[in-house]
Amino acid sequence: MNLTKPGIEKSRKLEIIIEASQKRFGIYGVEKTSMREIADDLKLSKASLYYYFPDKESLYRAVVEKEQDEFIANISDRINNINEPEQLLLEYVNARLSYFRTLLNLSRLRVETFSGLKPGFTDAINTFREKEKGIIKMIFDKGIRSGKFFIDDTDQMASLFLDLLKGLRIMLLNQKQTLIIEEEEYELLLEKVTSFTNVFIKALKYK
Amino acid sequence: MNLTKPGIEKSRKLEIIIEASQKRFGIYGVEKTSMREIADDLKLSKASLYYYFPDKESLYRAVVEKEQDEFIANISDRINNINEPEQLLLEYVNARLSYFRTLLNLSRLRVETFSGLKPGFTDAINTFREKEKGIIKMIFDKGIRSGKFFIDDTDQMASLFLDLLKGLRIMLLNQKQTLIIEEEEYELLLEKVTSFTNVFIKALKYK
Repeated sequence: MNLTKPGIEKSRKLEIIIEASQKRFGIYGVEKTSMREIADDLKLSKASLYYYFPDKESLYRAVVEKEQDEFIANISDRINNINEPEQLLLEYVNARLSYFRTLLNLSRLRVETFSGLKPGFTDAINTFREKEKGIIKMIFDKGIRSGKFFIDDTDQMASLFLDLLKGLRIMLLNQKQTLIIEEEEYELLLEKVTSFTNVFIKALKYK
Repeated sequence: MNLTKPGIEKSRKLEIIIEASQKRFGIYGVEKTSMREIADDLKLSKASLYYYFPDKESLYRAVVEKEQDEFIANISDRINNINEPEQLLLEYVNARLSYFRTLLNLSRLRVETFSGLKPGFTDAINTFREKEKGIIKMIFDKGIRSGKFFIDDTDQMASLFLDLLKGLRIMLLNQKQTLIIEEEEYELLLEKVTSFTNVFIKALKYK
């Protein structure tokens, strides 16, 4: 698609650029992708690309936000279609872990590089966290309404649940030099996360 | 005490050196303590100190191992004196967090320095982990025997419990440059760890 062609709206152009970057990042990681390569993929001059995104970090952020939105839309959809709150929680952690892998795959960053990027991502991280909490609270509420879960403070309980999940993810990355996980590590993490969720569900059912 | 005096056993000498280092590390952190200062505290020549410990890392390791042994002895003692498995678990996580703070306090390391030390510590970390697991399994067994806990696989459950606890600790350090935590952060972590333990206990009580 020729992005310089008149008649394409700016928002659509941004979308096309983000999709092309998503592809490149997904294959090579953000560190090993240059703005030049993305511009070439789109048959765009580097100057035009920089007109839309002032640097690679802002492009990377846009890709991450797109992935976040997709994850949230996807999971919200399931919430409307699944009735069992236990199953919903298990679906949630499964999808969340898969999203975690997607993000790692886009990044493939050295840990130091990621620490450097982080400050610019704080807002996006916080917004996402709030959305996640909203979803978990929705699942908890569904469980309470159906008489399956007994929770005094859903807000506090949702935070605790997300913190524990995050702890398990971070633990895996903690001793690594690069943010890459192997298939085997992923399987083990998924197992652990599933056991944890089953334990948590039991606790929620206890009056 | 004059360490060069004849008649003091070598094991007692090591103990004295470790205690002096424990004091210094506890006040200044391992990075800001030199072997010379420890030798001076003991009125020992640097050469004599190096005779017992070839480098600061090995001395630091000996101090950490001493703290580990004290923690394990302390907690094993409580297990014999407390009957309620719920209370025991809560005591355990409380003591474990306090031990975590002690270790951080001895180290006060920059995160990179700690990553550098870690390989040499792997054995000590693994041994400690096994001891921890043994204690948690003992508490679980106590709960099963008294008919309070229902656990199919105590080994797997103890691992999960310790992983989740560790995740919460690591999460706190994750965004830091130095391994130092403030009193306020400690209090928040303790609160979180206590809520988590209560949730876990509920799950264990669920048949």
